[in-house]
Amino acid sequence: MIYLDNSAATIPDEEVLKTFTKASSAYFGNPSSLHKLGGEASALLEKAREKAAELLEAEQHQVLFTSGATESNNLAVQGTAYARQNRGKHVVVSSLEHPSILEAVAYLEREGWDVTRVSPQMNGDVTAQSVKRALREDTVLVCMMHVNNETGAILPAEEVGLMLKRYPRIHYHVDAVQAVGKIPVSFRTIGADSLSISAHKIHGLKGTGLLVYRDTRNLTPLFFGGAQESGIRAGTENPAGAAAAVKALRLAVSNRPEHAAHMRDLNVQLETFFKERKEVVINSPAQRAPHIINVSCPGRKAETVVHALEQREIYISTTSACSSRVSNESSVLKEMGADQSVAESAVRISLSGRTTAEEIGSFMKAWEQTVPEVTLAKGAK
Amino acid sequence: MIYLDNSAATIPDEEVLKTFTKASSAYFGNPSSLHKLGGEASALLEKAREKAAELLEAEQHQVLFTSGATESNNLAVQGTAYARQNRGKHVVVSSLEHPSILEAVAYLEREGWDVTRVSPQMNGDVTAQSVKRALREDTVLVCMMHVNNETGAILPAEEVGLMLKRYPRIHYHVDAVQAVGKIPVSFRTIGADSLSISAHKIHGLKGTGLLVYRDTRNLTPLFFGGAQESGIRAGTENPAGAAAAVKALRLAVSNRPEHAAHMRDLNVQLETFFKERKEVVINSPAQRAPHIINVSCPGRKAETVVHALEQREIYISTTSACSSRVSNESSVLKEMGADQSVAESAVRISLSGRTTAEEIGSFMKAWEQTVPEVTLAKGAK
Ligand SMILES: Cc1ncc(COP(=O)(O)O)c(C=O)c1O
Ligand SMILES: Cc1ncc(COP(=O)(O)O)c(C=O)c1O
Repeated sequence: MIYLDNSAATIPDEEVLKTFTKASSAYFGNPSSLHKLGGEASALLEKAREKAAELLEAEQHQVLFTSGATESNNLAVQGTAYARQNRGKHVVVSSLEHPSILEAVAYLEREGWDVTRVSPQMNGDVTAQSVKRALREDTVLVCMMHVNNETGAILPAEEVGLMLKRYPRIHYHVDAVQAVGKIPVSFRTIGADSLSISAHKIHGLKGTGLLVYRDTRNLTPLFFGGAQESGIRAGTENPAGAAAAVKALRLAVSNRPEHAAHMRDLNVQLETFFKERKEVVINSPAQRAPHIINVSCPGRKAETVVHALEQREIYISTTSACSSRVSNESSVLKEMGADQSVAESAVRISLSGRTTAEEIGSFMKAWEQTVPEVTLAKGAK
Repeated sequence: MIYLDNSAATIPDEEVLKTFTKASSAYFGNPSSLHKLGGEASALLEKAREKAAELLEAEQHQVLFTSGATESNNLAVQGTAYARQNRGKHVVVSSLEHPSILEAVAYLEREGWDVTRVSPQMNGDVTAQSVKRALREDTVLVCMMHVNNETGAILPAEEVGLMLKRYPRIHYHVDAVQAVGKIPVSFRTIGADSLSISAHKIHGLKGTGLLVYRDTRNLTPLFFGGAQESGIRAGTENPAGAAAAVKALRLAVSNRPEHAAHMRDLNVQLETFFKERKEVVINSPAQRAPHIINVSCPGRKAETVVHALEQREIYISTTSACSSRVSNESSVLKEMGADQSVAESAVRISLSGRTTAEEIGSFMKAWEQTVPEVTLAKGAK
């Protein structure tokens, strides 16, 4: 099996699983219980929080544990918007955001907020300048992802952070899900007011995520029922899940220099390979994270390419996993100006630090042998 | 160690942990991915959903996986209220509900809903009659827990369900967190429109829960970003977590007859013991679930009783875990008419099917030896 869909999900690290199972049994108490077992579970949770803060260059009290980045993004978007609605009801997002941002702001729109979606320039880039032009007197929130999950494009999250320093009343949220472990991520350096992370994208467990939030006094919870997580995220905490998520984060951050260089090498090999193939258009920009390359074979449906490679036990994906059962057309690519035939034939190859050069060699061979044979879609030239 | 705080958290079952770790590695794909690994993860998730539906006598499509019962309760309360706000903005809840219901409705209240909290009668019971009297033309939601988490009281969830059959436009939500595995729980028999369950209260893992919801087309999500869980709960699903939660549920349901009888025996032993002790007032009603008994030692602070027993490695709790770090006074007992000295000295002993008669024997001995020695609080007679 050659697994090249690491932007959709990664295989959990053995150490992460071990941390989780050990902590689940050894620290099974409810962190809110007054007795020693509660205290121990609570201490484990706080140690995880402290470590996460250190790894992300944030303060311990700014780290909230969630059930994943979809919850983190929604908490940041909805929670910030609701908390600030008296100051203004305008939100600015890049049009390339993940659905967990785009659909959260679409919900706000239905509830009466104004939303400006900043589209990329001709060259495919969203710029800090275009974000700046979208700001209004009543803007309370700006969202910009750090790395796009479909193309790997690195967005100017830091430049936007710098630009927004002059607008201290605007909350700036960064989705760093595809950035962590691939490019340097620092809450401080980005200049964000909040930042979301998902553990299962970095060899952690599903159902665990983080939201770093600068000032939780200024945040409306998504759910209520207890003082957990600074009163922002009620519900019995999951200390084992938090410890496992932070273990995954620690590994991702400490392995990053080596793993990113390795993935970059493989990514360049893939780029070179694809450049020589006449059926292929490369969709990813040069300025991209090391783990993703997105290509199209116009005239061939993405789905059939995925399934052809699957016959060889090679797993890649169509667009993003979260929308791939709904539609195979990439809205991110359409936003970037790709035409229909490119958008509907896009596939994503996404690497992990553990992907080997041999696997990439086998992938290229399999591609040569199968993809050109894939039947052209009806109506394609 | 003698652990008698099973209503706050239970130790995960070895089989549950094994299910989780095996599934985390073997089914690590993203269920939304189009390829085989996605399909396998999705199949595991759907198998868990089917099994949960069978165990709870519901339909497969009615089962939603969540991060815990706090999320389940908030989704049921907020999601139902928002979806029905055009029909009416009045909600009825029992005043004995868990904070995840009470604080969710308090939030709705701040947002303009009317909330009626039905308090217990003189005998401590909330009756279906008193719920009926609280209904209005614009009532859209009624919430009633099945078993109270502090006293173990069994509330008339079924009678309310029966009564509400004549009000088909009202959504009826039941918090079954403390009922599952202790008394028979059937979505069909209760007559509920939704039902919440938490895995970590039944030897499952923290961070996993269920919401059974009759008709999800009529439910506003808490978060957005994908079509997962019938579009109601966006975010990458956690198939291993779901499988583990359903394993815990299966064990709880199949062991219930035997475990409940066993816990009932121990509970009666405790009751007999406490009845003979002059420092003790029993707060739990006769009509209670087998796993909880709640008692007070007026004049002695609950916290000091908990800590005295902790010296002997015996773990019980003050009121509910989720509020025990905030205040030691039980609002549930106050609602039931207890006076201040009783409410602030209440402790909860909560059993599991694995609690042994020996442990209860040691507990009683330790109680005799330590609790009467606990210093009386200032001002107490
Ligand atoms: C950029 C980005 N943001 C957010 C998410 C959502 O994360 P999660 O799967 O933890 O809900 C994903 C992945 O699905 C993603 O790629
Ligand atoms: C009756 C009741 N409902 C809801 C909850 C919340 O469940 P969870 O801990 O899964 O958030 C609890 C426990 O905390 C409970 O006892």
